[in-house]
Amino acid sequence: MPTLILVRHGQSQWNLENRFTGWWDVDLTEKGVAEAQAAGALMAHKGVLPTVGFTSLQTRAIKTLNLALEACGRLWIPVTKDWRLNERHYGGLTGLDKQETRDKHGDEQVLVWRRSFDVPPPPMEAGSEFDLAADPRYAGIDVPQTESLKLTIERVLPYWEAEILPVLASGETVIISAHGNSLRALVKHLSQISDEDITELEIPTGQPIVYQFDAAMQPGERRYLKDL
Amino acid sequence: MPTLILVRHGQSQWNLENRFTGWWDVDLTEKGVAEAQAAGALMAHKGVLPTVGFTSLQTRAIKTLNLALEACGRLWIPVTKDWRLNERHYGGLTGLDKQETRDKHGDEQVLVWRRSFDVPPPPMEAGSEFDLAADPRYAGIDVPQTESLKLTIERVLPYWEAEILPVLASGETVIISAHGNSLRALVKHLSQISDEDITELEIPTGQPIVYQFDAAMQPGERRYLKDL
Repeated sequence: MPTLILVRHGQSQWNLENRFTGWWDVDLTEKGVAEAQAAGALMAHKGVLPTVGFTSLQTRAIKTLNLALEACGRLWIPVTKDWRLNERHYGGLTGLDKQETRDKHGDEQVLVWRRSFDVPPPPMEAGSEFDLAADPRYAGIDVPQTESLKLTIERVLPYWEAEILPVLASGETVIISAHGNSLRALVKHLSQISDEDITELEIPTGQPIVYQFDAAMQPGERRYLKDL
Repeated sequence: MPTLILVRHGQSQWNLENRFTGWWDVDLTEKGVAEAQAAGALMAHKGVLPTVGFTSLQTRAIKTLNLALEACGRLWIPVTKDWRLNERHYGGLTGLDKQETRDKHGDEQVLVWRRSFDVPPPPMEAGSEFDLAADPRYAGIDVPQTESLKLTIERVLPYWEAEILPVLASGETVIISAHGNSLRALVKHLSQISDEDITELEIPTGQPIVYQFDAAMQPGERRYLKDL
């Protein structure tokens, strides 16, 4: 039976520092490393072992995947990395301290940027130290200047349909190691969550979520692996 | 200019214990981890940065690649894992202590198995604890029961020609993280080393070897990255 495992990367340095991260390539903290290893140990314990992996182009998700796969003895499975699984691009907020941003723009405006479905933050400023246009990992990719959750979904779902779903449909156990908002895009689609509700849904870090698919490739309930 | 980087995995637990390893999936030691990280740091220092990676299905080579890529900020490059880059299969010697094997079979016989070009060790015994026929990572693969260096070359080179060379020819900087004998296969081919001499050629662990290719895809001299 096709099985999908979703894992949000463990704690990153900027999660810890409470800064907007988006596409900026921040590493895992020691706690984040431990979360990733625990996710892998749980997969081994439950006997839910991935056979194919997908992740973003961002270090924190790739390392989470590598550490989890190592912990369940599956470092050898094929893994594809793609920018379309990247975190939502936080535009001009990238790198800012969340509290400072609230002080400057007001709680309400920041809540809109963080939690509205279709309002993107202000775009990345040209020449910003956080601009990734020249990063070789994004060569040939039209790097967004900012993204709402809606815009994030609009690049995650076509990738899901074209690249991941066919692999899953062939009977594989697919793991996707990604980010709060790229995973929201998938959970919204698979669990049919409204535009309004999805912005409130928190995906916990390092806690594998499992969907089992039926023969018609309809997903069952969304469950935490720990509860299986 | 197409550039090829070859890296032999860092010290493994069985390198340390002086046991025949072959396809058995032994982890890196702490020293092996440090060697891999140093290889990545050297690539960063020299500005020779891989854009595409290949490795075997064995943990020690995959981890060496991941650690080296992380150390040079290239964890995001595409990586393909394939059994044809695995270490030479040591057959019935797998798992044995090298000294014990010499005591039992004599120095001369062990030297023949280790250093002859085309004499494979005795095959893996059916039911051996080191038999990998049931390992899911080799599902669908006709796992050899033993290999000489010649037999190793006969599965490495077709993979090189079909899968790696075209990528290199497209102008990429390709890194291959692999094993003493799968790398011997490549070095023999690229540096035109005789059957006799190749069995004596030691590939040092964690020490990147570089070939630069000309427009006709002819390899230049084999050089250590540290000497570039």
